[in-house]
Amino acid sequence: METADAVKKNHDLNPSCATSCKCSEYRDIKEAGTLTNTEVLGHGPRLSKANLFTLLSLWMELFPREEKEVVNKNVFTRGTGLVVVRDQKVVGLHCSGSELHAGQVAVIRHGPKLASSELYFSRKPCATCLKMLINVGVSRISFWPGDPEMSLSVGVNGMDSISQEAVLDAIASEKLKSNSRPHIGVAVQPLALGLQQFVMETSLGCDFVERMSGDNPGLDTRDLFCRQRRQNISTFSQEFLILPEQHHRDILAKIGLENFCMEPYFSNLRQKMTDLVEVLASVAASLPVLQHGFYWKDSQPTASESSQPPGVSQETARHCTIQARLLAYRTEDPKIGVGAVIWAEGKSAGCDGTGRLYLVGCGYNAYPVGSEYGEYPQMDTKQEDRQRRKYRYIIHAEQNALSFRCDEIRQEENTMLFVTKCPCDECIPLIQGAGIKQIYTTDLDSGKDKGDITYLRFNGLRGVQKFIWQKSTLTRFASEHAGPHLANGSGSMRKHDRQSEQDVQCNKRARSAMPEDHTPVC
Amino acid sequence: METADAVKKNHDLNPSCATSCKCSEYRDIKEAGTLTNTEVLGHGPRLSKANLFTLLSLWMELFPREEKEVVNKNVFTRGTGLVVVRDQKVVGLHCSGSELHAGQVAVIRHGPKLASSELYFSRKPCATCLKMLINVGVSRISFWPGDPEMSLSVGVNGMDSISQEAVLDAIASEKLKSNSRPHIGVAVQPLALGLQQFVMETSLGCDFVERMSGDNPGLDTRDLFCRQRRQNISTFSQEFLILPEQHHRDILAKIGLENFCMEPYFSNLRQKMTDLVEVLASVAASLPVLQHGFYWKDSQPTASESSQPPGVSQETARHCTIQARLLAYRTEDPKIGVGAVIWAEGKSAGCDGTGRLYLVGCGYNAYPVGSEYGEYPQMDTKQEDRQRRKYRYIIHAEQNALSFRCDEIRQEENTMLFVTKCPCDECIPLIQGAGIKQIYTTDLDSGKDKGDITYLRFNGLRGVQKFIWQKSTLTRFASEHAGPHLANGSGSMRKHDRQSEQDVQCNKRARSAMPEDHTPVC
Amino acid sequence: METADAVKKNHDLNPSCATSCKCSEYRDIKEAGTLTNTEVLGHGPRLSKANLFTLLSLWMELFPREEKEVVNKNVFTRGTGLVVVRDQKVVGLHCSGSELHAGQVAVIRHGPKLASSELYFSRKPCATCLKMLINVGVSRISFWPGDPEMSLSVGVNGMDSISQEAVLDAIASEKLKSNSRPHIGVAVQPLALGLQQFVMETSLGCDFVERMSGDNPGLDTRDLFCRQRRQNISTFSQEFLILPEQHHRDILAKIGLENFCMEPYFSNLRQKMTDLVEVLASVAASLPVLQHGFYWKDSQPTASESSQPPGVSQETARHCTIQARLLAYRTEDPKIGVGAVIWAEGKSAGCDGTGRLYLVGCGYNAYPVGSEYGEYPQMDTKQEDRQRRKYRYIIHAEQNALSFRCDEIRQEENTMLFVTKCPCDECIPLIQGAGIKQIYTTDLDSGKDKGDITYLRFNGLRGVQKFIWQKSTLTRFASEHAGPHLANGSGSMRKHDRQSEQDVQCNKRARSAMPEDHTPVC
Repeated sequence: METADAVKKNHDLNPSCATSCKCSEYRDIKEAGTLTNTEVLGHGPRLSKANLFTLLSLWMELFPREEKEVVNKNVFTRGTGLVVVRDQKVVGLHCSGSELHAGQVAVIRHGPKLASSELYFSRKPCATCLKMLINVGVSRISFWPGDPEMSLSVGVNGMDSISQEAVLDAIASEKLKSNSRPHIGVAVQPLALGLQQFVMETSLGCDFVERMSGDNPGLDTRDLFCRQRRQNISTFSQEFLILPEQHHRDILAKIGLENFCMEPYFSNLRQKMTDLVEVLASVAASLPVLQHGFYWKDSQPTASESSQPPGVSQETARHCTIQARLLAYRTEDPKIGVGAVIWAEGKSAGCDGTGRLYLVGCGYNAYPVGSEYGEYPQMDTKQEDRQRRKYRYIIHAEQNALSFRCDEIRQEENTMLFVTKCPCDECIPLIQGAGIKQIYTTDLDSGKDKGDITYLRFNGLRGVQKFIWQKSTLTRFASEHAGPHLANGSGSMRKHDRQSEQDVQCNKRARSAMPEDHTPVC
Repeated sequence: METADAVKKNHDLNPSCATSCKCSEYRDIKEAGTLTNTEVLGHGPRLSKANLFTLLSLWMELFPREEKEVVNKNVFTRGTGLVVVRDQKVVGLHCSGSELHAGQVAVIRHGPKLASSELYFSRKPCATCLKMLINVGVSRISFWPGDPEMSLSVGVNGMDSISQEAVLDAIASEKLKSNSRPHIGVAVQPLALGLQQFVMETSLGCDFVERMSGDNPGLDTRDLFCRQRRQNISTFSQEFLILPEQHHRDILAKIGLENFCMEPYFSNLRQKMTDLVEVLASVAASLPVLQHGFYWKDSQPTASESSQPPGVSQETARHCTIQARLLAYRTEDPKIGVGAVIWAEGKSAGCDGTGRLYLVGCGYNAYPVGSEYGEYPQMDTKQEDRQRRKYRYIIHAEQNALSFRCDEIRQEENTMLFVTKCPCDECIPLIQGAGIKQIYTTDLDSGKDKGDITYLRFNGLRGVQKFIWQKSTLTRFASEHAGPHLANGSGSMRKHDRQSEQDVQCNKRARSAMPEDHTPVC
Repeated sequence: METADAVKKNHDLNPSCATSCKCSEYRDIKEAGTLTNTEVLGHGPRLSKANLFTLLSLWMELFPREEKEVVNKNVFTRGTGLVVVRDQKVVGLHCSGSELHAGQVAVIRHGPKLASSELYFSRKPCATCLKMLINVGVSRISFWPGDPEMSLSVGVNGMDSISQEAVLDAIASEKLKSNSRPHIGVAVQPLALGLQQFVMETSLGCDFVERMSGDNPGLDTRDLFCRQRRQNISTFSQEFLILPEQHHRDILAKIGLENFCMEPYFSNLRQKMTDLVEVLASVAASLPVLQHGFYWKDSQPTASESSQPPGVSQETARHCTIQARLLAYRTEDPKIGVGAVIWAEGKSAGCDGTGRLYLVGCGYNAYPVGSEYGEYPQMDTKQEDRQRRKYRYIIHAEQNALSFRCDEIRQEENTMLFVTKCPCDECIPLIQGAGIKQIYTTDLDSGKDKGDITYLRFNGLRGVQKFIWQKSTLTRFASEHAGPHLANGSGSMRKHDRQSEQDVQCNKRARSAMPEDHTPVC
């Protein structure tokens, strides 16, 4: 995601986007260059913290579950994503398991450490979760104002007995809210000016799409990206938005948000929700499902590497990398946003919807915590003085993920780093020293020397398995070299992924009929 | 322990109790119903926190030790129980080991985490423990004002040399106390009005006694309970009280409590001490030692269950369950008090008198932490409106034990839950998800649907061993199915338990001669 | 290190020391006895905390590395020692590894727990370390004002390109310093009056030297000690001081310490640095490298002991024991200073220069934390009243190391205690109960009953391996009984140790020519 490059490359792109898209405004801003809004002028616009946490919670709701999972028998309970934040840092990413709600998962996993945490839910949690979270002392509960965990949508057509259970639950939730210490409410914020377009451009320009383009010179990646994005918007809207306005109003009234039912607050809320869903759709489209996946960097792994743990499924790798890409939109770097997420695989399946995986840490590249805006050098393209360059002051995404980790890295477990850029030479020894066992990334920069920053050590790194975003290696080397999960990566794809792949196939004709340049594609 | 039921069932009981018993007063209160004392009016009277911690410390002194333990050579050092409290939560239950005093055990086990903790000792700790606890920064040390850890009783008859050691220790303790930051003193509080009688009734009416009654229709459980209680009073008084008044005064003077030697403070102190000993005697009598114990729920355990770790001894299971019953007397539930304790078995014997066992958490059922009195619905029998029922607001004992756990639950260790009621359907997935390996409980409610609360999932719970308070199963299924410890549960009983069993046998004649109803039994 | 005895024994010693030595002043003070300076009057002078941490950081720079270590390719980066302090307690001892700087090691090992810590570096850390430490929220960074980690000395002769890298690094460091929250600076303090001489006398009089003297009645230990000390001064000066004044000034100016370049501050700084280097030289000379080392106490270890983990190398054991000896100079005990350090051996080599070893805790003997001066009895030789003796109030070094440990003691790992005196009977059960697997110490007091303190249990202690400072046991029992590391202890000695041994051999002639008493030896 090289902002400047991406913007330049897609400069003449004039997407006819969804109605909410502010791309033309954004380009005006960049060209005029007169705005004093620092977020736009200094570098690309940023996600606010609250929106980042909200987006991560929505995305966690879609965490790929294992096949064997028993579906929750209560059809009125909806799976929920949850982000646990302490001291402004993400310390937990969870989702509903087959037996436990996301809020209960958090209580079981964090216990008394939940005290003074802030929680971001992808749905209003049920009263049972709420009472336990209030009891354990969380300081704030934010939730996405769609259909709540105890669904008020599903039972509408007839099945009233259980729907009434949901109504009783909503009433109890309100009583708990009114008596509780933590603030319970909605934290959705408006997007920064131009962010929607910026995310679209940088997603399309990111290393993952670029790699696909390089591997298949004939591939129209812009078209592929836009169709993936549209597909995502459709899926995510069904999941997270309540399309009929009156139905949405009814639900808001039942979950204690009657103040949002009036105009202009209602339209405002819906616009903000739509905007965030579209941002998520763009980011999730940056690793399109086609022939690419995360495969071993080296066709002939060493003996010791072969004996290392198998990687996660393609789906999970893609999901975690998109978490990292979301984090990158909080960057403070003037040029390149990078995100990193570290997950570890515990010894036994927990109660979490993430199965045996648990979060170890995450971060993005930024100036040292506590820095004021502009305190440190921020290189632009004309800056020649080596003393004034940013490189000596920026904390890399991997460094932040390791510094503010929320759990220990255990030698006996498989700990995995997902990062949106190839790790540089400054980070390689830290990653290795910390005991990371696997890296999932793109190696587009590997081997390059960019002056103040070099990527010369990644290729030679030993003792850490490297899974690189690349074309399926099935044709490149014997399948027995690939880890069992990864070998059948495409085989374990989920239904909606397969659909989108079919979608890609079916639309090949349509695409080839479309002009390639200067044409609205999104 | 269903308060209302128990009270009704034992309504016509007119026990001629120990001198301190306030049972007649208590019944007057319940019948008149005019008192404004909320603790009595809203629901049964409660134990104060200080008294709960004090009772737990006394009970920890009696923790069953393993046979192989080498008796401490210093006959002047008495075994001591210790409760570690942080932020008003129990975070450690300890007792003297064969080599270390309880205070030293706490330093070794908790280290710097002891800072700002409150400690409740069953005896005044020795100067060596005191200096280490002051050094590590505890905020308060409370002790039971009986014979101190460095006994001032044992050496009275002749062996003056070591007794002088105890005197020197007492002097050093005073010097440490006067210079130290933590407050060091006695925290025994008066019982709430009617609590003594309430504990007696609810102990006699608890599920454990009821199960015995159900299993043996001819058994006079009231008589059994009362004799067990009297036996306990006799044993505990010898352990915890100093019967000759002058001797008690001498000891108080020597351990820096000379202010307690004067009237009316002296009599007051002794009365409060006697009251607490009697409460402990009642609670400990609620799992009478006869033919019942904790045995596998299913006569034909599955293969995977057979390979699970063996349970603890009958003695230990009974001891931990009584800890849970003590905790239940802090309930805020208007109807049913429930207590839960979680212990885990470490890989190697520690220095603690509890051997390989260490506390993971404990709790009782209550409204969310921070609730004010009456803030949430409190169902009475007439309440019909489902919106107003307590069930959506009460945090169950198991939930509190898990939420405020003081240690992690490790998958590779055997973690055990002791709980005074069958876990309900809301708690079952939490217990399983948290990684509990064994449950010790009563299944009296198992399979029942009580409207707002159901117990339908306990029977079907798989992957967790269930040990149920029931008649010895030796006659019911082949002994090789029982875990080694539990198979010979009665065989490993301690001397004083065997004595009380003999006592029960010997008194069968006496009991059968006694009228069964409306007769003073305690 | 028995202060009183040592002072008496060496009373007639009139060492003509290095120019900075204040030995004559010190003896005047002791004899006159008129000073009111409590540090000198009450007991021996003490190291300030800042100086203790500084000395430990210098000493950590010299931590013996494993042979296989790859030398850092960047010849301009100098190995650095680091002490992490939280709440005035040492919680980490680190040094540069083959891949990571000491500051990075601390970030990887402590993560977010570094927040609010104070760091003491043996060199000014590089900008990359600095940015990460500032980012993670440390509260203070102190460094030794010699050649910085990115050396400004090495490149002087010609290799300007990389030397310029060091200059850029120094500039970046200054920018980081000026913007950062933590205070970054120099914390070297002047020595307490008489401390230099006190350290020399007590090092020469310590148990380790005394044991050598006892084992070799003909050995001139004073001469041996003084030559070892001179050897150390020479080695350490080369490592830690910048001898040419102008060069030192240049470096100070480049690392942002231009205020120190002016007089009298410059001379003052250099004097303080020289003083500390000499203190370190004295302490490090107290375990002279000759025929003595740490060998198994019992010539015939039990079968279970033979199966225990091997010990660390002689070099490492000596290094850690000298850490303990440095700690002893913070004692509050009026008579005997004792230091203790606990290290554990993790399962896999970390990124730390200490390899698999990590600090668990350390301490020295002192009155309870928070005590005011003179609050507790402080025995002098005339004190007869047993009530007034210090023994009941002093927290032993081992007790402090265990109480304020910075990591858990894991049963599956080898945890080692290094202590400068034989553990007494009060500490033995604590050491065993805590799960210590090995003790490295001197057993000079073992078996003794000194009235208020006894050492009767050390010999009988089972289940803990005891490595005692004694003559090489190669001649005393079969080598297969010794652990592999320890058997070849002398074989794995480092180059400069071998040199000093040769030095000793070569100077035998010189020594025998020297008068034995009343002669300047240092």
